[in-house]
Amino acid sequence: MLLETIQQPSDLKKLSHQELQTLANEARIVLLGKISYHGGHNGPNLGMVEMTVALHHVFNSPVDQLIFDVSHQTYIHKMLTGRAEAFLSPEHYDDVSGYTNPKESEHDLFTIGHTSTSLSLANGVAKARDLKNETNNVIAVIGDGSLSGGLAYEGLNNIVEQGTNTIVIVNDNDQSIAENFGGVYRNLKELRETNGQAKNNFFRALGFEYHYLEEGNDVAALIELFEAVKDKKTPVLLHIHTIKGKGFKFAEENREKFHAGGPFSLTTGDYLASGSQEETYGSITTDFLMGKMQTDPKIVAVNAGTPMILFSKEQREKVGNQFVDVGIAEEHAATMTAGLAKNGAKPIWAVFSTFMQRSYDQISHDLALNDLPGTILVYGASVNGMNDESHLGIFDIPFLSHIPNVIYLAPTTKEEYLAMLDWSIEQTDHPVAIRVPVGAVKETGIKDQTDYTQYFKSQVTKEGSQVALLGLGNFYSLAEDIAFDLETKHNINATIINPKFISGLDTALLDRLEEKHELVVTLEDGVIDGGYGQTVAGYLGNKDLKIQNYGLEKLFHDRYSVSKLLVENGLTKENIIKNILNSL
Amino acid sequence: MLLETIQQPSDLKKLSHQELQTLANEARIVLLGKISYHGGHNGPNLGMVEMTVALHHVFNSPVDQLIFDVSHQTYIHKMLTGRAEAFLSPEHYDDVSGYTNPKESEHDLFTIGHTSTSLSLANGVAKARDLKNETNNVIAVIGDGSLSGGLAYEGLNNIVEQGTNTIVIVNDNDQSIAENFGGVYRNLKELRETNGQAKNNFFRALGFEYHYLEEGNDVAALIELFEAVKDKKTPVLLHIHTIKGKGFKFAEENREKFHAGGPFSLTTGDYLASGSQEETYGSITTDFLMGKMQTDPKIVAVNAGTPMILFSKEQREKVGNQFVDVGIAEEHAATMTAGLAKNGAKPIWAVFSTFMQRSYDQISHDLALNDLPGTILVYGASVNGMNDESHLGIFDIPFLSHIPNVIYLAPTTKEEYLAMLDWSIEQTDHPVAIRVPVGAVKETGIKDQTDYTQYFKSQVTKEGSQVALLGLGNFYSLAEDIAFDLETKHNINATIINPKFISGLDTALLDRLEEKHELVVTLEDGVIDGGYGQTVAGYLGNKDLKIQNYGLEKLFHDRYSVSKLLVENGLTKENIIKNILNSL
Repeated sequence: MLLETIQQPSDLKKLSHQELQTLANEARIVLLGKISYHGGHNGPNLGMVEMTVALHHVFNSPVDQLIFDVSHQTYIHKMLTGRAEAFLSPEHYDDVSGYTNPKESEHDLFTIGHTSTSLSLANGVAKARDLKNETNNVIAVIGDGSLSGGLAYEGLNNIVEQGTNTIVIVNDNDQSIAENFGGVYRNLKELRETNGQAKNNFFRALGFEYHYLEEGNDVAALIELFEAVKDKKTPVLLHIHTIKGKGFKFAEENREKFHAGGPFSLTTGDYLASGSQEETYGSITTDFLMGKMQTDPKIVAVNAGTPMILFSKEQREKVGNQFVDVGIAEEHAATMTAGLAKNGAKPIWAVFSTFMQRSYDQISHDLALNDLPGTILVYGASVNGMNDESHLGIFDIPFLSHIPNVIYLAPTTKEEYLAMLDWSIEQTDHPVAIRVPVGAVKETGIKDQTDYTQYFKSQVTKEGSQVALLGLGNFYSLAEDIAFDLETKHNINATIINPKFISGLDTALLDRLEEKHELVVTLEDGVIDGGYGQTVAGYLGNKDLKIQNYGLEKLFHDRYSVSKLLVENGLTKENIIKNILNSL
Repeated sequence: MLLETIQQPSDLKKLSHQELQTLANEARIVLLGKISYHGGHNGPNLGMVEMTVALHHVFNSPVDQLIFDVSHQTYIHKMLTGRAEAFLSPEHYDDVSGYTNPKESEHDLFTIGHTSTSLSLANGVAKARDLKNETNNVIAVIGDGSLSGGLAYEGLNNIVEQGTNTIVIVNDNDQSIAENFGGVYRNLKELRETNGQAKNNFFRALGFEYHYLEEGNDVAALIELFEAVKDKKTPVLLHIHTIKGKGFKFAEENREKFHAGGPFSLTTGDYLASGSQEETYGSITTDFLMGKMQTDPKIVAVNAGTPMILFSKEQREKVGNQFVDVGIAEEHAATMTAGLAKNGAKPIWAVFSTFMQRSYDQISHDLALNDLPGTILVYGASVNGMNDESHLGIFDIPFLSHIPNVIYLAPTTKEEYLAMLDWSIEQTDHPVAIRVPVGAVKETGIKDQTDYTQYFKSQVTKEGSQVALLGLGNFYSLAEDIAFDLETKHNINATIINPKFISGLDTALLDRLEEKHELVVTLEDGVIDGGYGQTVAGYLGNKDLKIQNYGLEKLFHDRYSVSKLLVENGLTKENIIKNILNSL
């Protein structure tokens, strides 16, 4: 294979257009081989094959600096920059991450995983180049889906303002993760349909020199365009139409399904892990909301570009105007939620923990300062969530729970979760966030009758002495396991507490712990710094009680094994019991 | 005065255009009377006089819902909605806040203080209206300066997508706080110069029905335009050219100076508090950076729309391309800083604590995950900062210090600050944030020789026993005061510690405190929840030491008296000494 002869991008320089096309064809086959076996981002990479080949033929990485938005479309880039083995040999599949990673290659400038940052990064890189009086090209590749994020617009504005070489490539495949939403997409459509000639032009309005290319999967056409703008002294925007999923029929036909996923069959296009029919906390949420929406037209779910965490395409059609996908624009989702709540709707914003952090200011000001009763459902908030360093769900407790007025809840069972969710939707006093449990559904069969207006009231599920275990949310069961062993193996009758509330303390309960306990142990499924346990430690610091906080070390843990990470962080029953026994 | 007859906006309905013009003239005089005596946002309100009169004449607040971006331009709105007394009578000047405030009036929908949120709020309000099958108008007023924030663009996109009544008014006075920066401003200029007829039209490109009005300070023209679009079923965007500072010569002539400020002379246009020549931590920073920039062209300062915290207009001209104002776009500032650092520049991003929170995700991912050596100078991070509930500088420790890789420093003197700043600019290992001290400059006269690569190493400034006082940054002097009284009045020789680092602990030092101490006291100038003290408490929880954390209650404190707030939060020397004595 030609591909195997490519050690670095400069090896593409000497290839003819015909050979480059062959290389692209090989790369697509190799890509399909890996993603069908291993899983990954399918559509985005299939669509980028030709463009990546053309980029590395025309430009001169790493002297010319390439920045890819989200960087989930860089599998071919990795193949062509010395990492082909990670796509050719199954035993090396995991040698590379699913995103650009400077630790892997000098051709990867940044670790990226969230959308809409590429243009601002490029603006900084280009400004530094100018300060150093260097003359290389800076190229940012951004998908149409990422254009809905406000940061992309800030980047566009500032690239024009800077006025020096920056080549912005809008890779327009007419699809976000799911559908695109927002006014700018009408303009992109108009531009595609007029071969870039439409009178209304978002990019020209911002001051860009604009070029349109319809044949975004044609190597020769791409090379011609890139050659034409290479080394320009002023910013230029290339609007290039590509086919998401290009070259794999099933991916071209079902672009949402094939945005990303696990292993699939190349012959049938079916994912191998058949969708389980088992109940999950996700399916419970969906069922509950769809039922409740039918009887209350004021309930409205909001989401920023990941609608599938709540509703499938069919379900979205069913709930109609009671669901809003705002595009990949988490800030807008948060602030719109505030507007909805203010005007008497009952909004539920569903968001992954890792993406929620994109709206810190909007949660703080628009929701919390205004004290508006929107509900935030926080998905994937756990060590058992996405495990790429760019998609961690372990920072939400530190950043969310210390914002005034926010009631942050940690349910431990299905019944508790549904009671909290129902209460949150109906109450009109505060913003409420719920850390949607992760993992197998736990059902008690007993309806949760808790009055959640009794803010910060914890539940003592077992009255004991000596040791009190506060098991927060997903880690409540760890508290139960520890208590069981303490009792059966060490004759210690520990108290077990389900805190329920993350954002405040049951001070009456904590005050009385002193009477019968020597040690308070907190367990939380997130980083320990700034977490729940430290607020407990701060409160109890002046009392005659010892406190042990358990959680994860403050690090960007990357592609970790959960069980190994738990061991490394002392988060095992055995270690905690050992420490408890040492302390008593 | 006609103004005194206006009890509510409906009173404007019956007025003739002539009377409305009289009302506007009166309102401007009353406004000048208050702001020249009291201080406030000058230019923005002077420019909005006629528009506010016309809005309340045509629309029907509070049924029609008005949302003002930042809401610093709503003084006239307040006058016309039952709050004229707060502008007419000096003894009532402080009855109203400088922003919209739902606690004051049903005509104020939201508490707002940060930019670019109005369109997303309006989008939520309008969506709720639609769900309720109501038909009122939703009107959002946003200044040109706020258009540089990405959230405004997200709002524009989603208003078009929603497709129902929302009237967006772009109040274009061709000025942000200082100059405008970004491509969109070229288009606004083009549109102003062509009376809205330019071919390139940013708003039309996003799908808006667009109307331009040149005479934005003409009541009759404004009324005609508003009447024409009132009750439209689809979104509409009104681009209205107003004069910032209109009607006060000095404000029209010097728009940056008269954006906001304290009391000024109506006859000379001079601010009464003459610019002190005394050294401040701000002036120290400016002097240091200007000096260092001269010898190192790779040093570059970045700021998002508040350039005056670093450089005056003249100084900006002097430093030239070593300063970048990105517009009011804090996310871009953070991410651009990452790009600059990656490519070998030495960026310093200067930002207020309250605005830094708009970039949580960009600090976390672009700077911290990539572990890039950008410097963040955090201004106004103190209880002694801005004291509006929408501009508090007391949340930065909880949200910033728990992000991995960030080194967050708290200097206590001029020498320490400059040593930290110089080190930060030259080091190449991590993002470093410095909490710029607030208040009078403290000078030791002794150069700080600390090696700041010894991460998290605290300084023991006085070795004692029994009690260890950790006084963080601005509160270090409080620790000294307490220690002095403990020694002189209670014969207790307390240990004093200057932690220097906020984002990590000197565990070796904390470990050895147990030997000679019973009590550890932490003092920090910010909210206590998620703060520095709680990390200390968490670390020491399992030891034979008591811990007391001092800081502010987790609340949006509003227009507080600092001394009163400190008393209410137990942050007085007397209270802390009492608690210490009780604990020993």
